[in-house]
Amino acid sequence: MSEARIWHGGDLDEARRLFPGAPEPWIDLSTGINPIAYPVPALPASLFERLPLPADHRDLEAAAAEAYGAADPAMVVAAPGTQVLINLLPLLRPRSRVAILGPTYAEHAQAWRAAGHEVSEVASPEEADRADVVVLVNPNNPDGRAVARDVLLALAERLRSRSGWLVVDEAFADFDADETIVPALPSNAVVLRSFGKTYGLAGVRLGFAIAAGDLALRFRQMLGPWSVSGPALAVGRQALRDRKWLNAAREGRGQDARRLDALLQPFASGPLRGTRLYRLLETMRAPDLFSHLGRKGIWVRRFQFDCRLLRFGLPGSAVAWERLSGALGEFA
Amino acid sequence: MSEARIWHGGDLDEARRLFPGAPEPWIDLSTGINPIAYPVPALPASLFERLPLPADHRDLEAAAAEAYGAADPAMVVAAPGTQVLINLLPLLRPRSRVAILGPTYAEHAQAWRAAGHEVSEVASPEEADRADVVVLVNPNNPDGRAVARDVLLALAERLRSRSGWLVVDEAFADFDADETIVPALPSNAVVLRSFGKTYGLAGVRLGFAIAAGDLALRFRQMLGPWSVSGPALAVGRQALRDRKWLNAAREGRGQDARRLDALLQPFASGPLRGTRLYRLLETMRAPDLFSHLGRKGIWVRRFQFDCRLLRFGLPGSAVAWERLSGALGEFA
Repeated sequence: MSEARIWHGGDLDEARRLFPGAPEPWIDLSTGINPIAYPVPALPASLFERLPLPADHRDLEAAAAEAYGAADPAMVVAAPGTQVLINLLPLLRPRSRVAILGPTYAEHAQAWRAAGHEVSEVASPEEADRADVVVLVNPNNPDGRAVARDVLLALAERLRSRSGWLVVDEAFADFDADETIVPALPSNAVVLRSFGKTYGLAGVRLGFAIAAGDLALRFRQMLGPWSVSGPALAVGRQALRDRKWLNAAREGRGQDARRLDALLQPFASGPLRGTRLYRLLETMRAPDLFSHLGRKGIWVRRFQFDCRLLRFGLPGSAVAWERLSGALGEFA
Repeated sequence: MSEARIWHGGDLDEARRLFPGAPEPWIDLSTGINPIAYPVPALPASLFERLPLPADHRDLEAAAAEAYGAADPAMVVAAPGTQVLINLLPLLRPRSRVAILGPTYAEHAQAWRAAGHEVSEVASPEEADRADVVVLVNPNNPDGRAVARDVLLALAERLRSRSGWLVVDEAFADFDADETIVPALPSNAVVLRSFGKTYGLAGVRLGFAIAAGDLALRFRQMLGPWSVSGPALAVGRQALRDRKWLNAAREGRGQDARRLDALLQPFASGPLRGTRLYRLLETMRAPDLFSHLGRKGIWVRRFQFDCRLLRFGLPGSAVAWERLSGALGEFA
């Protein structure tokens, strides 16, 4: 099971096992999920009871197409979260050479390997130039690295000449969208967009693949007509059309990110990086800081690939800010 | 897209297109979904906001294992509905000869064909004996035909000798469970169970694959750790452990099915068949009856493979029973 092999944020049960004496409630800063959630509207019972209507599913995809700037709603495939899309995409190709721009979200490499592909991690798009498939997260998780759209479009063009694919996981692009390739999507590119992170509704399970006709159709065939729940359809349609909320949230999380940077800066051995939804701290003292915060009931994200890194999600309340600030102040 | 090719129940938009003058609200008898839904408890916002916890996912699978009689929760894989499991299962085998006991739910054949397998429809399990994979719905949709457990276990044994699989879609076995093979599951069998039909919560999207270790693990890898939404986890765990509700619903729907049979009997050219959640009427006048009911705002299920058949779901309210009874009385 993937959850046994890859560390993920969001599992407070794991936090409680590691730090059994920590004060409750835990403050969970281990994810890149917006802590100020989109307010879930009242949901009529019929959303739970009735099979979702094809027309409502299509309307959700139309809302997503508009929100993400896709030229055609037929290119947008709604799914119960992007994770399942990450897992299914490798099943759509024969054994290929896959280059993943790393380090990044570990599920990509695992999914391609599990499907029998030959996976290598590369440090730059240029190094990927002999691969059949190039995968990157843009902006990247955990370090916020952004690859310019022009670079990606040129890479897609080169991949196309050998029937290759460019896979861009834009999970964190709603708030940091400068380099999104959705509006100029090449026919051999697949973009993944996450609903739950931006809107703070990770429990709803909603995500999207955006791809040209044939690829979108193959996703649709794998998922079938009712993979997205009634509540997710209703909340998703409303939230994706609420541009006012999105703009305010972008502004608010930007302020939060700067406030978090100010708290972390004293411990940083280099510039703080990341996106508006998480900040990456590099320090030789990361393991000690992780344990110190854990004992204080504050759960942050460490990484198997580099023990000098800790990723901090944004605190979502005055109490959470105070407890983090206090705990950092006591770290000597 | 599958919804464009296969007729399904539950799409009232289609009903309104076909019968634009029909009175609203429509009475939807086109599905086999329990019209008396399990009452959805109050759902805290955290279920929508937080990533579902692995422990909660495992607990849901433990509840399902107990409800369905599986020997080990590790054999049970929760998914966002059984449809996606139907679509993914054919990806787990190289090209095979697949025999489907038909006529039945059309998505099975479509999914195996889309994945490149050689699919044939057979009329009895005995006829399937040269296939690598045998698929059946038990009890069957739409006709309620039940294949005895002993027959299925013997078939699985023969399939095992040639590395074949037995796939049993037990979508309607919660109320009609006499022949379920879950408690004696062979290592080369996959059982699918549907949550939404029994509990009247099709919009929640929840279903299960039950299979021995290796196959269960492959499903888990394809779906990833968070394919089931927070609300579905919470409602599913509670409902699957509510044996009192299930027993009362079985009794209630059994009474409803007998009441429906009494209304349909005058039009039937043979015995009424089906399960406690739907009844199948065979009559030469089926197309006329379909149109008559449609003009009255009552939407029932017709079938591409046999125009003499109509499937009726159970009315869910006194008004629905009255309108159906009245409309049938006016059909001359």
